[in-house]
Amino acid sequence: MKVKVFVTGGTFDKEYNELTGALIFKDSHLSEMLKLGRSKIDVDIRTLMMIDSLDMQEGDRKIILDHCKKDPSDKILITHGTDTIVETAKFIAADLQDKTVVLTGAMVPYAFGSSDGLFNLGSALAFAQTLPSGVYVAMNGKYYPADNVRKNKQTGFFEEIK
Amino acid sequence: MKVKVFVTGGTFDKEYNELTGALIFKDSHLSEMLKLGRSKIDVDIRTLMMIDSLDMQEGDRKIILDHCKKDPSDKILITHGTDTIVETAKFIAADLQDKTVVLTGAMVPYAFGSSDGLFNLGSALAFAQTLPSGVYVAMNGKYYPADNVRKNKQTGFFEEIK
Amino acid sequence: MKVKVFVTGGTFDKEYNELTGALIFKDSHLSEMLKLGRSKIDVDIRTLMMIDSLDMQEGDRKIILDHCKKDPSDKILITHGTDTIVETAKFIAADLQDKTVVLTGAMVPYAFGSSDGLFNLGSALAFAQTLPSGVYVAMNGKYYPADNVRKNKQTGFFEEIK
Amino acid sequence: MKVKVFVTGGTFDKEYNELTGALIFKDSHLSEMLKLGRSKIDVDIRTLMMIDSLDMQEGDRKIILDHCKKDPSDKILITHGTDTIVETAKFIAADLQDKTVVLTGAMVPYAFGSSDGLFNLGSALAFAQTLPSGVYVAMNGKYYPADNVRKNKQTGFFEEIK
Repeated sequence: MKVKVFVTGGTFDKEYNELTGALIFKDSHLSEMLKLGRSKIDVDIRTLMMIDSLDMQEGDRKIILDHCKKDPSDKILITHGTDTIVETAKFIAADLQDKTVVLTGAMVPYAFGSSDGLFNLGSALAFAQTLPSGVYVAMNGKYYPADNVRKNKQTGFFEEIK
Repeated sequence: MKVKVFVTGGTFDKEYNELTGALIFKDSHLSEMLKLGRSKIDVDIRTLMMIDSLDMQEGDRKIILDHCKKDPSDKILITHGTDTIVETAKFIAADLQDKTVVLTGAMVPYAFGSSDGLFNLGSALAFAQTLPSGVYVAMNGKYYPADNVRKNKQTGFFEEIK
Repeated sequence: MKVKVFVTGGTFDKEYNELTGALIFKDSHLSEMLKLGRSKIDVDIRTLMMIDSLDMQEGDRKIILDHCKKDPSDKILITHGTDTIVETAKFIAADLQDKTVVLTGAMVPYAFGSSDGLFNLGSALAFAQTLPSGVYVAMNGKYYPADNVRKNKQTGFFEEIK
Repeated sequence: MKVKVFVTGGTFDKEYNELTGALIFKDSHLSEMLKLGRSKIDVDIRTLMMIDSLDMQEGDRKIILDHCKKDPSDKILITHGTDTIVETAKFIAADLQDKTVVLTGAMVPYAFGSSDGLFNLGSALAFAQTLPSGVYVAMNGKYYPADNVRKNKQTGFFEEIK
């Protein structure tokens, strides 16, 4: 059972630039995280973009959707910034029903030590292997169908709408 | 959906005693790990024992099985040392069919920074929420039915038998 | 031998705000760092301000200088942002000759795991205990008199001018 | 000013063997630690042995002493297990007076995240650069002449005898 992983950026992959003091994107930490997790899942990782999800445009979402559609795998994990992860999940769900697509992110960059990223990655990969076809957001140890989730911006936690 | 968590010890919870230089058990790190993972899963954690799984006797396995049976929850996670995690999984599977029981562990103590524990915990909790009734070992990002898994002691990875 | 520690902020104490994604100041990490280092140095810590050193004004430097002058201790450590640490060192050196004042900082926030902060703190406290009266910048494991140091903004390392 | 560094093992360099669950020695972490500390000190590192200091024999101490004597540098740092660090310091002090020799160690392995090692390394290197000729133990942020220090085995902290 192969899981396709699409990297789009987000807090997950932000790093600290010690010369400028800014938070930046360089390479994805996914491979390093999978190695730390001693993962033996058959994954194929492709970076589609490296952006803050607040900067994500409809064109970017079309790129993600196209890759989800064309990829031979029917188990897909997408790493994504949490600010607009729900919008992208809905965008994909509107046009893709026959694959299991799980979007996940992190509230704290993986590179900063005290990150929720490794926990989220573990749970999202497990959900990608076990959930029926559909588009889901996996955060806080739980999974939410794309049409029943929002990020609570006051608490930073995800919750059901209905 | 409540998940019951039984802690039994194992590498997961080992710590370094700086006065003696030995690896010891003190308290479980489960709550701290769930907090780091920003988990919102409804869990109820109970420590049954704090032992190295090489020291686990049949009496200990009966205690674990009894708690699995009696607990009202039908989603159960057990943290366990990896050396005999398969034996305990089989022991439970022989006598309990109507609940989802997921056993997980770690190859490196959580307290040592570069641990697979947080990844394993995330995936095991996801599997506990989604897999059908049965007893499973969750390691290396994957899940294995109790009757089709062994730990490869040369590589430290888990693998299917059949 | 008591060492007075004045905290002024800087990268040392920056944290990641998981709700906004910004780098912010909350409390100083000095006490936590000294505990991790198992320090038995007799220190007295006082936070004077919590600012980015690019925002430091002459008024702020006067506050720091005044505290250095009035404090009964003649061994003083100041934690400071690296961007203007040299300016503050020179400002103090112009008006205070009879105490050992060591300024140090960090290129990566302590909270981000892979920080140089703990190394710098260890060396700066050692220099404060052993160097003769004068004002010094302690970075990169070395000490530099206030009038013979600059930060190389291309490399992020400190170097002698002369 | 070049500092010679002799590595002898000790808790500093212990690692967790994930297959056996034992604490072992592989390579020294000194270079990695100096890189993390962004050190620009001119050092020359040589590993003399990789042993637990409880296993250190008089023959081992002679090897260390010989290297200290023969090395052209008069600034020497020795990393050493804390259990017998004082014995080795005295052994060197009895036969070498004209160099600054600083011994340091760690109570928690560097590889375990919450280690005092980076703090100790920073302070020991600073003491090696600034203290007059003599043999010293640098622990807990302080320095102790070889003839006036003991490890308190109850607390794990070093203290003066006199």
